Amino acid sequence: MARWEEGAERRLREAALELFAQNGYERTKIADITARARLNYRSFFRHFSDKREVLFAGEPELRQVAMVALEGADPRCPILDQAMVAVRAAASWLDARADDAVATARIIRQSSELRERELVKLEVLTDEIAAVLHGSGAAATDAAVVARSAVGLFVVAYAQWSLPDQQCAQSTTLVELLDKCERTLRRATNPSIQ
Amino acid sequence: MARWEEGAERRLREAALELFAQNGYERTKIADITARARLNYRSFFRHFSDKREVLFAGEPELRQVAMVALEGADPRCPILDQAMVAVRAAASWLDARADDAVATARIIRQSSELRERELVKLEVLTDEIAAVLHGSGAAATDAAVVARSAVGLFVVAYAQWSLPDQQCAQSTTLVELLDKCERTLRRATNPSIQ
Repeated sequence: MARWEEGAERRLREAALELFAQNGYERTKIADITARARLNYRSFFRHFSDKREVLFAGEPELRQVAMVALEGADPRCPILDQAMVAVRAAASWLDARADDAVATARIIRQSSELRERELVKLEVLTDEIAAVLHGSGAAATDAAVVARSAVGLFVVAYAQWSLPDQQCAQSTTLVELLDKCERTLRRATNPSIQ
Repeated sequence: MARWEEGAERRLREAALELFAQNGYERTKIADITARARLNYRSFFRHFSDKREVLFAGEPELRQVAMVALEGADPRCPILDQAMVAVRAAASWLDARADDAVATARIIRQSSELRERELVKLEVLTDEIAAVLHGSGAAATDAAVVARSAVGLFVVAYAQWSLPDQQCAQSTTLVELLDKCERTLRRATNPSIQ
């Protein structure tokens, strides 16, 4: 992609996030976004297939970060540890972009249409992690249960990180929240651990 | 609801399931469903808000079964055990209607639109279980992690139960598959258990 095109995508994304936060996702039109980004209307569709996708522009990279980390995880480790390497890499990637990521998460949270799209993307991540674990020799059930658990922990931590009524995004990283959720799961599944 | 109205809902549902299985969900029109059920077109909308909802007609009752079981669970048990009581009750309810439930699950699996709706319904169940556990004194993170884990196990078991390429629906109950998934999670989170 040419450098000015990259700049255009970033400007559209920034303009969209500002307008969504200010006027709400539903009330913002694509024409409002392109006007604020000082681009023509059609340029929007060179970068995004629809208005929803502005909020999920980072998702393929996030998923790639998780999958690359999973490929690099030690195959001799328990498979839950391997799956946690994947979601921890995703969390760390979001921590490095916390302002944008929290703003995006808060907008998604307010719209059931956006939440549906997010759930579908999380299913894709879950299935990909399960496929890699299964491909490395884990039984299908083990791979599916572990992938879903790891992504489930990520979802809980992500929801806490982006809560509008607390300041935790500023003070606690997503990775820290994820680690806390993992300890919670291990304690909950094994009541002898305190 | 009057008895003849209940009969109409059941006939619409049976007609829809047959047509979806035979011609595909997308290609089936509401008019086809009402014609097969020998009812007039408008009667469909006395029972269902749209075509998708025919497939989710049992969902409120399923959720109620799960929540009633959760309310009855021993509050002195670990909260994962309590959450498992809820999803096991849901699984048992589906086992009692296996033919219809498996047919429905297989249709949902084939359409991304239906899969999205299903994911949203599972989010509602997850949030309700978490709210009850939190209301009974569990920390918010514990309640969220445990509710999501229990529903995650249910999702994996349900997917296996309704796989088109295996006969397990006939030979293995959903409750048995769920129990197997729970053992898998406990083993995966505690590598010392073999």
